[in-house]
Amino acid sequence: MSSIQPVPSVTEDCEQLRKAFEGWGTNEGLIISILGHRNADQRKMIRATYAATYGEDLLKTLDKELSSDFERIVYLWMLDIPERDAHLANESTKKWTSSNQVLMEIACTRSAQQLLAAKQAYHAKFKKSLEEDVAQHTSGNFCKLLFPLVAVYRYDGDEVNMSLAKSEAKILHEKIQQKAYCDEQLVRILATRSRAQISATLNQYNNDFGHDINKDLKAADPKDEFLSLLRATFKCLTRPERYFEKVIRQAINKLGTDEGALTRVVTTRAEVDMKRIKDEYLKRNSVPLDKAIAKDTNGDYEKMLLAIVGRENA
Amino acid sequence: MSSIQPVPSVTEDCEQLRKAFEGWGTNEGLIISILGHRNADQRKMIRATYAATYGEDLLKTLDKELSSDFERIVYLWMLDIPERDAHLANESTKKWTSSNQVLMEIACTRSAQQLLAAKQAYHAKFKKSLEEDVAQHTSGNFCKLLFPLVAVYRYDGDEVNMSLAKSEAKILHEKIQQKAYCDEQLVRILATRSRAQISATLNQYNNDFGHDINKDLKAADPKDEFLSLLRATFKCLTRPERYFEKVIRQAINKLGTDEGALTRVVTTRAEVDMKRIKDEYLKRNSVPLDKAIAKDTNGDYEKMLLAIVGRENA
Repeated sequence: MSSIQPVPSVTEDCEQLRKAFEGWGTNEGLIISILGHRNADQRKMIRATYAATYGEDLLKTLDKELSSDFERIVYLWMLDIPERDAHLANESTKKWTSSNQVLMEIACTRSAQQLLAAKQAYHAKFKKSLEEDVAQHTSGNFCKLLFPLVAVYRYDGDEVNMSLAKSEAKILHEKIQQKAYCDEQLVRILATRSRAQISATLNQYNNDFGHDINKDLKAADPKDEFLSLLRATFKCLTRPERYFEKVIRQAINKLGTDEGALTRVVTTRAEVDMKRIKDEYLKRNSVPLDKAIAKDTNGDYEKMLLAIVGRENA
Repeated sequence: MSSIQPVPSVTEDCEQLRKAFEGWGTNEGLIISILGHRNADQRKMIRATYAATYGEDLLKTLDKELSSDFERIVYLWMLDIPERDAHLANESTKKWTSSNQVLMEIACTRSAQQLLAAKQAYHAKFKKSLEEDVAQHTSGNFCKLLFPLVAVYRYDGDEVNMSLAKSEAKILHEKIQQKAYCDEQLVRILATRSRAQISATLNQYNNDFGHDINKDLKAADPKDEFLSLLRATFKCLTRPERYFEKVIRQAINKLGTDEGALTRVVTTRAEVDMKRIKDEYLKRNSVPLDKAIAKDTNGDYEKMLLAIVGRENA
């Protein structure tokens, strides 16, 4: 599913990067031509080899040499996956606004093992748990939903209990009818059931009540922020590529691009499901994602985005 | 801290066990003399070697050959540690009564890594998550406390934030004054902070308000079951040996021993902190634990308990 092609010689990469930093100015093109085309394992080896060879943390050097959106995309791209998730989650607890869906996104689109790795990286880096920061820095209904989403070690198996799907579809429908959107039962189902089980429950909901659950939630109040988070949660758990397509679409279609969101989705999904997101983007917008990015961004930031998204596969 | 001495030759152990099952009746003494004196790694190897040699699961054979309390102690003793925790936790969600503190005990006396291993064993064995069973089978205040206790991947480090300890001691005191024992903030502190941080907070509580927090909770209502769970939670997080001493004391001092509790504590703590529990027991009861067990139990069950508790070190 990756848009990145493996390429050899870590030593050579390090030498080239070193050259890119030498003299007046920085050779951004060279940096993009290397780092934009290396997969996660290769980037990790480049960081380790660079530190061993030059006694410097490549991330710190990049931080000194680069700036603004280009700096951020290179930084996120170079972090280890669990480190990156920990970093994004921590940022999100610190500048918490109710519309910020990053914590939910990390909790719901990573496997149990990946979320655990992010929590371990969080312990190592911040000397505390992700859960305590989420519990402390969020509140009200948002906390009631986000805390269990972040905390639970979700079962990843494919087994589905159809009678449970039926009874829990009924519970979800009742709670939505009662406008009890943060009801304990509703949150319990969303936060603790496996993705396969939740998909079965939502299909059952559709069969028994004639609508997609997100349609009912949208009809209830299309502008309510908690409902919007709830819809995004259902989407992330069952059709993450649609959720990410929408995040990118909204980031690009805004007056002034939302570079934060665009950078986050591109760096975190490139090696996971970018192909599916691109397919979804093309279907929904009738424009290939790379063309849309090229139209809306520029300079080194644009070049790095396109290198990661993988123009040739679009 | 273990009361178990390592002894060699797994093959010989398997042959002896095989002999113990042969002919009419079972040689329980032989089983105790072997399994009662092997550590966790050795028991694991015995299970694997037995299966490879005789094509039988030793646990199933033991199940057929043994009965009642003796069967249960041998079974729990022979399970891998994470498997055993998963088994106990699952039993506890199935026969949930509000006075059942086993889920809290497992959540609060295991390290983050051990609790995670138990959750992974739970996934493998029951094809679902511990969290979904806890959320589904507990309710009310008990669920509000137990769910986050079980779910959180707690930070295990030693760092302590003293100003946080001061502010959170104040929150705890306020909530207890207001009799808001299941307040979100109180639960958040208990469920998400590291053990080191909670200890610092409770020390601060004692300094600032002149009492141990558990004294205040007991004074509020000594018979309330939720308050009793709350007190036990504070104890498990800060002084587990005292919690376990009390569980054993109450199991033994009952009219009719509580074999379930006694077996659970002996099998789960033997290789962790049994020495500290025995010290605590002697201090609190003026009788060594092995003498108390010998007085209150009998037969093969007694012999197995004493073998595990490690008479010679008492």
